[in-house]
Amino acid sequence: MRAALKPIGVFDSGVGGLTVARELMRQLPGERLIYLGDTARTPYGNKSPQTLIRFALETGAFLSRKGVKMLVVACNSSSAYSLEALRHHLSIPVVGVIEAGARAAVAGRRGRPIGVIGTRATVRSQAYAKAIHALDPSAPVEAQACPLFVPLVEEGWTDGPTALQVAREYLRPLLRRKVERVVLGCTHYPLLKPILAKVLGRDIALVDSATEVAREVKTLLEAAGLLSPLRRLPFSAHCFFVTDPPEQFADQARRFLGRQPKVLPVRLPESKA
Amino acid sequence: MRAALKPIGVFDSGVGGLTVARELMRQLPGERLIYLGDTARTPYGNKSPQTLIRFALETGAFLSRKGVKMLVVACNSSSAYSLEALRHHLSIPVVGVIEAGARAAVAGRRGRPIGVIGTRATVRSQAYAKAIHALDPSAPVEAQACPLFVPLVEEGWTDGPTALQVAREYLRPLLRRKVERVVLGCTHYPLLKPILAKVLGRDIALVDSATEVAREVKTLLEAAGLLSPLRRLPFSAHCFFVTDPPEQFADQARRFLGRQPKVLPVRLPESKA
Repeated sequence: MRAALKPIGVFDSGVGGLTVARELMRQLPGERLIYLGDTARTPYGNKSPQTLIRFALETGAFLSRKGVKMLVVACNSSSAYSLEALRHHLSIPVVGVIEAGARAAVAGRRGRPIGVIGTRATVRSQAYAKAIHALDPSAPVEAQACPLFVPLVEEGWTDGPTALQVAREYLRPLLRRKVERVVLGCTHYPLLKPILAKVLGRDIALVDSATEVAREVKTLLEAAGLLSPLRRLPFSAHCFFVTDPPEQFADQARRFLGRQPKVLPVRLPESKA
Repeated sequence: MRAALKPIGVFDSGVGGLTVARELMRQLPGERLIYLGDTARTPYGNKSPQTLIRFALETGAFLSRKGVKMLVVACNSSSAYSLEALRHHLSIPVVGVIEAGARAAVAGRRGRPIGVIGTRATVRSQAYAKAIHALDPSAPVEAQACPLFVPLVEEGWTDGPTALQVAREYLRPLLRRKVERVVLGCTHYPLLKPILAKVLGRDIALVDSATEVAREVKTLLEAAGLLSPLRRLPFSAHCFFVTDPPEQFADQARRFLGRQPKVLPVRLPESKA
């Protein structure tokens, strides 16, 4: 197969990475996606670096065998710990969401601190602070773990009094530090944008890595001459795999993609016990 | 080894089952426990029956190889789906938390409906309704899935305005149905007792399966002549295994057990990929 026609692999702990998949479809309508959501072991946000690396290598190996030309790690927790190991083991380019988010975080910065919200694993890794400081060593970063945001989104409680109460609790330290923008360091969080904007007020901008990472993928594919020559693929060209049986994922995916994809089951690790 | 001196295996998706372990230590101080928390794949509450059965067989096989004389499935989601498969594959008695909880739910019932709260998997299984109806076919059961309770407990937000707000939201249908008691159908929920009692009021009793399942284990061991002849074992006699590296579990375990156990890592499935 001509290399440019090969699909892009997108990997996430579950449904959250569909916000990245949606942006890839929007910005790169000629690219075919193979998405893998590790729904049997989701969520990743409270798990340890060792476990996250092991899971990433298993999923990376699966997508690599599917013949993808590039791997997008759409999960922030996984991006925070697993990129190096993935790049070491795979022969294709590996793109994480954190560097892209960091670039957007510093672009046009005015001088007040940059807020970052994410899972416990992502915040503990300090991956955003490191990526931001690599671009702008003088930028103060205020990171806040928000472990309840993912279950809130998965419960569908993205507005209403509970979401508001939880958002107020988590965002209080960022408001106190007078941050000028807040990076959504978890792929579930874009679904909370309205409530986050309400609590943060109109002066604090929200930075969504999904848009940025899709832009980066496009740049990298162009540079490598790997951009698909096709103009537009139908939605049915994309493949979605999950490690837990597909029904629940298919339902939730509708909230993220606006339509229900066809989803296939896969077992990880692939060798049988 | 004399069969009665063998340990009891206790299995849970993570830390929640420690409420059951604590009751076993209290009621059976001469029994040694081997606890396995599947923290790498926790939580189980939103996962499918097929995946829950697969995980239970892997953990059951691990504990069985450790030479346990009985397996206690401390996780409600797992008990709801996996008991039959475990009993089919293992040669030791397997005890789940649901039947014990159901017995306590109907004991001394006055006539109003019985409320059950649990994860989405447990509620979807209707396992409590079935177990309750097997004991009292006339008992109306009102079950309510509360997916945010587990993350609330793991975040340590067991009181305060958010816990109150979430509890009010979930318990409203049970209050409307005028239930006379509420079964805590998830091992995390005992840590929410004060807030649940506050929302439900003093007329609605809370039924905790942990107490019941420990009583049932005692009865079964006595009947089989397998009760340990020892009077009291030190806390350090118990073994705790987890599938994600142990640090975080050890910290959380303190909240459940009042002291920090020694925790060892294990990989599941055991064969290497």
